[in-house]
Amino acid sequence: MNLVLDVTNYIGIVAFSVSGAIKGIKKNMDLLGVLVLGFSTALGGGIIADLLLGKTPPTNLTYLPYPTVALLSSLFTFVFYKIFSHVQKPLLYADAIGLAAFAVSGSSLAYSVSENVLLVVTVGTITATGGGVIRDLLSNEVPMVLTRDFYATVAILGSLIYFSLRQLGYSDLVTTMVSFTITLVIRVMAIRNKWELPKIKV
Amino acid sequence: MNLVLDVTNYIGIVAFSVSGAIKGIKKNMDLLGVLVLGFSTALGGGIIADLLLGKTPPTNLTYLPYPTVALLSSLFTFVFYKIFSHVQKPLLYADAIGLAAFAVSGSSLAYSVSENVLLVVTVGTITATGGGVIRDLLSNEVPMVLTRDFYATVAILGSLIYFSLRQLGYSDLVTTMVSFTITLVIRVMAIRNKWELPKIKV
Amino acid sequence: MNLVLDVTNYIGIVAFSVSGAIKGIKKNMDLLGVLVLGFSTALGGGIIADLLLGKTPPTNLTYLPYPTVALLSSLFTFVFYKIFSHVQKPLLYADAIGLAAFAVSGSSLAYSVSENVLLVVTVGTITATGGGVIRDLLSNEVPMVLTRDFYATVAILGSLIYFSLRQLGYSDLVTTMVSFTITLVIRVMAIRNKWELPKIKV
Repeated sequence: MNLVLDVTNYIGIVAFSVSGAIKGIKKNMDLLGVLVLGFSTALGGGIIADLLLGKTPPTNLTYLPYPTVALLSSLFTFVFYKIFSHVQKPLLYADAIGLAAFAVSGSSLAYSVSENVLLVVTVGTITATGGGVIRDLLSNEVPMVLTRDFYATVAILGSLIYFSLRQLGYSDLVTTMVSFTITLVIRVMAIRNKWELPKIKV
Repeated sequence: MNLVLDVTNYIGIVAFSVSGAIKGIKKNMDLLGVLVLGFSTALGGGIIADLLLGKTPPTNLTYLPYPTVALLSSLFTFVFYKIFSHVQKPLLYADAIGLAAFAVSGSSLAYSVSENVLLVVTVGTITATGGGVIRDLLSNEVPMVLTRDFYATVAILGSLIYFSLRQLGYSDLVTTMVSFTITLVIRVMAIRNKWELPKIKV
Repeated sequence: MNLVLDVTNYIGIVAFSVSGAIKGIKKNMDLLGVLVLGFSTALGGGIIADLLLGKTPPTNLTYLPYPTVALLSSLFTFVFYKIFSHVQKPLLYADAIGLAAFAVSGSSLAYSVSENVLLVVTVGTITATGGGVIRDLLSNEVPMVLTRDFYATVAILGSLIYFSLRQLGYSDLVTTMVSFTITLVIRVMAIRNKWELPKIKV
């Protein structure tokens, strides 16, 4: 893991924890529930990814810095909720950085197990979006990622870009930097232009 | 895997994907959500079964034909939704074929890991019904399989029949064909006679 | 596993199964649904714990006595529902015994894999509370453990006590007995004094 991906991963953990904690507070959860939601949103996707790849126990349950940051971010959100509920715009961009970083690091991990496009794309996408799905399921809601926005699609594209560049012979380091940047740009464009996927009128 | 089970597995994947995709469309999901629901309904049960048996990465995330069929079926359902919403009856029988095929192939896989009746029955049943449970959870509904119909019970019976025949000394091939056929017949009888399990009035 | 933990584990399985079965009945599930909910509530936490630790197939799907007790308890609850719905108080204390026993046995299992405080606490807590979360998710409700009561916090404290005593050099046997007892006492005090964690008013 290189420095840039390491830093962006921490930005993602903070942004994802805050989004989970805010959802927990809105759902009238107590302190424990808010911490669990922050933790699961930030680290749940990576845990599922590890299970799918047979990496047990999952890194997110053994490497202490990640959960520490997730729990502290959730606690801060609980204590300073009024502030956090007023910084939605910066959080949206921090979340975009996390989405790109998680998709790329998940893809990289899957690629090291098997150079299989399906595995790389599903694991990369689950790493980036699985935490949000857990957050919404624990909140008794249809996962947001399935109904609107151009979000999981960005993770799929990012994983595909990672896979393609590696197949073309680029190193993990170069591929990571390039696919992280492209993925982030796509997500920012999706936010700014309010991209949406088509739906069927029932 | 023999030819009959291979063909019936594909019929099941198509039927399960279509049921997932239709549910996603009804829940107002976008194209990505509809594809995820079709994919999860068709392949989620098998993925959980592989995780329980320690087979990682799961076959459904590495062997390309299954997901390709699942995603294409979901895409067709999205594009031609009006047609698919008018073929419920044939879909119900295609689903019955899938239920029997998945229960038997899940049981066969579990039996190859351990000749344990509990493991064979739970893994066979989860392979056949786990996808539908995921579909309903992602749709924010109580899993249909827990509340009505004679459906998961058919998978349990099919897995028990598979286990019993193997214990009696029959080969995987013979056992597969016989237990698939009996399971399918039970499910068709359940559909035709509208079998239901008892409930407690609260 | 020593005798006391073995006995308390069975008390927990009965209490958890009954709580799952009662929820299933209240949610208008049929016999199959009630059995699945009882089974999942009692054994689901341990199954997730085994998956996280890489122990496949999970013990709860291969060792027959546990599931047998869980299914029989659920069946009894289904048949004698009127009686079970009138013994909430004793069930609450049986549940407390299960909570303490599951947290300690989960912690012990995790500790045997890795002396990592995060892993021990998350696996201990998931072993004790994961089944209840599955029960509530299958019932289409926000998991109770996230919104009120002093329940998962007890499992966290119990796992922390187990970890600390082991680190201080005490044997698994002594640590198990001491941390089980303290955990149970904390839970009983929480019930009697109606302890709650803080919440944020939104």
